[in-house]
Amino acid sequence: MRLFDARTVRDALDALKKSLGNIPVKCEEVPLLPALNRVLAEDVYSSEDIPAFDRSTVDGYAVMARDTFGAGESIPALLKVVGEIRMGERPEVSLKPGQAMKISTGGMLPEGSDAVVMLEYTQQFDDGTLVIERPVAPGENVIFRGEDVKKGSLVLPKGHTLRPQDLAALAGIGRQKLKVAVPPVVAVISTGDEIRPPGEKIKPGEIRDMNTYSLAAQVQKWGGIPRPYGVVRDDFDELCKVMVEALANSDMVVLSGGSSVGTRDLTVKVIESLGEPGVVVHGLAVKPGKPTILGAVMGRPVVGLPGHPVSAMVIFELVVRPLIFAMLGRPANYGGIKVRARIARNIASAAGREDFIRVKLEERDGELWAKPILGKSGLISTMVESDGLARIPPEKLGVGEGEYIEVELY
Amino acid sequence: MRLFDARTVRDALDALKKSLGNIPVKCEEVPLLPALNRVLAEDVYSSEDIPAFDRSTVDGYAVMARDTFGAGESIPALLKVVGEIRMGERPEVSLKPGQAMKISTGGMLPEGSDAVVMLEYTQQFDDGTLVIERPVAPGENVIFRGEDVKKGSLVLPKGHTLRPQDLAALAGIGRQKLKVAVPPVVAVISTGDEIRPPGEKIKPGEIRDMNTYSLAAQVQKWGGIPRPYGVVRDDFDELCKVMVEALANSDMVVLSGGSSVGTRDLTVKVIESLGEPGVVVHGLAVKPGKPTILGAVMGRPVVGLPGHPVSAMVIFELVVRPLIFAMLGRPANYGGIKVRARIARNIASAAGREDFIRVKLEERDGELWAKPILGKSGLISTMVESDGLARIPPEKLGVGEGEYIEVELY
Repeated sequence: MRLFDARTVRDALDALKKSLGNIPVKCEEVPLLPALNRVLAEDVYSSEDIPAFDRSTVDGYAVMARDTFGAGESIPALLKVVGEIRMGERPEVSLKPGQAMKISTGGMLPEGSDAVVMLEYTQQFDDGTLVIERPVAPGENVIFRGEDVKKGSLVLPKGHTLRPQDLAALAGIGRQKLKVAVPPVVAVISTGDEIRPPGEKIKPGEIRDMNTYSLAAQVQKWGGIPRPYGVVRDDFDELCKVMVEALANSDMVVLSGGSSVGTRDLTVKVIESLGEPGVVVHGLAVKPGKPTILGAVMGRPVVGLPGHPVSAMVIFELVVRPLIFAMLGRPANYGGIKVRARIARNIASAAGREDFIRVKLEERDGELWAKPILGKSGLISTMVESDGLARIPPEKLGVGEGEYIEVELY
Repeated sequence: MRLFDARTVRDALDALKKSLGNIPVKCEEVPLLPALNRVLAEDVYSSEDIPAFDRSTVDGYAVMARDTFGAGESIPALLKVVGEIRMGERPEVSLKPGQAMKISTGGMLPEGSDAVVMLEYTQQFDDGTLVIERPVAPGENVIFRGEDVKKGSLVLPKGHTLRPQDLAALAGIGRQKLKVAVPPVVAVISTGDEIRPPGEKIKPGEIRDMNTYSLAAQVQKWGGIPRPYGVVRDDFDELCKVMVEALANSDMVVLSGGSSVGTRDLTVKVIESLGEPGVVVHGLAVKPGKPTILGAVMGRPVVGLPGHPVSAMVIFELVVRPLIFAMLGRPANYGGIKVRARIARNIASAAGREDFIRVKLEERDGELWAKPILGKSGLISTMVESDGLARIPPEKLGVGEGEYIEVELY
């Protein structure tokens, strides 16, 4: 299925995924700490109860809660202290009615006890008598066996991106290695006769390559490994040669640059020449970003982004990011944090077109306002000044000042 | 100044910073791509105008805008095409009234021209006559010299954390290397006789070390380099030995574990024995996290976090994160994204105490609600299930259902 009219991003991605077929998630095993921010490639179940025993959460005395019922300052409960629990060890005796054992935070409750009285609410006499002036409820100041993680329960699902607390939980259940997705390698190619690498002196009419840096950094930000191929001239043979090398050494190719008709036509011709199905989508109903090309060659996605640096970054988020996520097995809704804000001025939009407005967020009277940063999509400074992108959905003809919109933060 | 009462986080950090004196930011130079997420250690000014010339944003014809004023379908403007501008080159001639030159997106406008008419709105005859059926305004479809970045202007300030668009802008002004802050090395030590590394089999009464993993990952998340020292027994000599090594090889030491009075006393004794000023703050008016120890030894911060995994993570964010930021020269308000949400149930809090509630966010009728994930601070699963922390400020006695609160997302 080829779509040559400007289509919605969803239609375009669906068409591309259809021609790519199943996108497999490659896996590898890594130790816990390097797994931060990686995507789980297995459902992790616990083979144990955490904690493996009833555990005190305070310093005090392990008791049977019912021995303390009704205790108060005038009628304290009097218990017999029968020992002290050593940290990291199983108590040697079990508790009988009328007895208590000294326990530290994290200590294992003796059999028979079901609560801990905090040290502050007790007094111990030399003869071993403990005076308790407040009752405790069963379970008070105790983490019961399996209360944190139950044996057999799902701790974290496949596709989850690992945060610090997740690594802690996995350490808690004794995992030392995890199956995670292998980051896809994404080739990044800039094209255009007027584009020069940042190290070179530029002549009038030339500008420096910016897209390689924003796009490679976006690849990295979203979990891929960027492989930059630098700047390629608008030349069929030269671009073909670099594309063949890029396709052989990566999981996806992202081109940008040359937003003129000539360069776009060249990109299309090169993609078509490299194999079936070639170009699948040409043109998106998105502003900025209309002149986008989606193709598939050798089972790998090839994305021709518009040349303007803002358009290239926006379309990367809409098109390349979901493809990286698919290769990582990450849910499509993962990503930038979305906040609700009120738009600070009227913005017009065409029907049937998705618009993305760069906005700066401001708080006014406890409410979040999104101030559009207007300016041509060739101005990278508008991305630098803004905090996120506000979306105007295709069915809307614009938004009015004060209207609520959704902003995805960078 | 030593504070041994439970104090607010702000007071405690101020006291610690006072005893540490000036915290220097160490710098290094790195190339652009590895600078993603690093903190700029220089104010970056542009030594050039970007673009360095007036540039077309469309495919079309460069014109003098006034030649098109009043043009329409019935009375088109007729101009003489005097050439085509090649990409990446300076036009050889300048434009005179009544003339136009063919130009591609990104092309350099010839002297004399101040606007570009889009190809779609023109017709060119064989004899070189261009028919224009719509007027253009001066500046239309043009990015003027310096419109993106002005020569001499501040592109990015010291202390800024570099995002993809920032790298693109820096590439645009020709930077190949950047001065960034050297990530501080943070030693992470777990203590406690009952704590075992995840690789070992555990006996009744023992639990596995979780804090090393959450805390080391938090160090990494916020821009530091974690150096884990594993689990140390509750033994004065052993802890001293590891602490001396950690202080010699890192910029900050973070201890956790042993939340019992005994372990806390040991941590205090060890910090005091290593040098002046030793312990500066003991106890914070925060829940969870009261039993926190802040100290300074050899000019380095030493933070004794509570042992419960949730408390340790929360206090890390409140105390260790700002110290890492200070070492990176990053503004203190950088960090987790904060959203406003309505709390889904009543939560009580003590006056004078800051409370942090783990919450899960839900959208109900277009509004964000924060559902408290209740559970003891020993349960790491409550961190895994939640999306962020809601803060109840010290002056409040709690929050009522439906009240707006601030949630910092993980």
